[in-house]
Amino acid sequence: MQPKSSSLTECPAARALETVGEWWSILILRDAFQGMTRFDEFGQSLGIAPNILSRRLSHLTAAGMFSRRRYSDHPPRYEYVLTPKGRDFFPVLVALFTWGNRHLAPKGESIVLANRGDRRPLDPVLVDALDMHPITTANTVVMAGPRASRGMRNRLATLKAMNPELIPNCP
Amino acid sequence: MQPKSSSLTECPAARALETVGEWWSILILRDAFQGMTRFDEFGQSLGIAPNILSRRLSHLTAAGMFSRRRYSDHPPRYEYVLTPKGRDFFPVLVALFTWGNRHLAPKGESIVLANRGDRRPLDPVLVDALDMHPITTANTVVMAGPRASRGMRNRLATLKAMNPELIPNCP
Repeated sequence: MQPKSSSLTECPAARALETVGEWWSILILRDAFQGMTRFDEFGQSLGIAPNILSRRLSHLTAAGMFSRRRYSDHPPRYEYVLTPKGRDFFPVLVALFTWGNRHLAPKGESIVLANRGDRRPLDPVLVDALDMHPITTANTVVMAGPRASRGMRNRLATLKAMNPELIPNCP
Repeated sequence: MQPKSSSLTECPAARALETVGEWWSILILRDAFQGMTRFDEFGQSLGIAPNILSRRLSHLTAAGMFSRRRYSDHPPRYEYVLTPKGRDFFPVLVALFTWGNRHLAPKGESIVLANRGDRRPLDPVLVDALDMHPITTANTVVMAGPRASRGMRNRLATLKAMNPELIPNCP
């Protein structure tokens, strides 16, 4: 085994994928955002084997996405409640949902996101909080952050050599 | 095998996960957004086995995320270029990246997203295009879309019974 490259250990997207785990985890989080908290609810929704569901819930709990809360003493039963860290994953799911409806529902949508107040369908767009302009591949670059290792700086230098317009000079 | 539930076959997030494939696919897309196009570039960035990389690139090409373009005749060599559908996945990656930097970089960031023009770090937020208000769990509901099956409507009715405030009446 060679040591993992900085593109895996330092990239926040790679870290996020490692934290979340497998695809099932994202669907469990989706169900949690739709109000499910209990083992049987997730199991029935997803139709996955109990041992896999159990492992995924444990992983998400250990990763700080769920807190486990006892809701029955006899027999002992727990529910899984999204933590602030878990709730903060919501935009990832909305972005995934939006892309799926746009590109993978050619005959029309089966489920849509809507505004709670007036029930109008939402049109989610990712913007920069400062000026509210959409964030696109055309106006976005990656730069080394304060904790970039030498490996990460080398990676960014290589990327810059390949595509000068995508990667600016490291700070 | 029991038939897959509508929560897997009709949900756009579930479809998106099935389309993208495994975690590696998202990291390959990440590298493509950073300017990589060639097999060896992805392989070196990710340190994955060539057979796995080859399978993932084929899957993403078949799924319409990449188009394959011949860039050398002798020997024949191809590069993988993001299609409009592939480029449209960018907000998912930015959302994942943002969540990772917020929650999984406690000692500081190794890599940041910045505005191309003035190099200021971006603060990505997901808003509704209509009124530019942030999309949150508090102001968002799911509703049946025009192509919702009976199974999906049943699912939404069950969710509504569990959490009336999360799911409105189906249209």
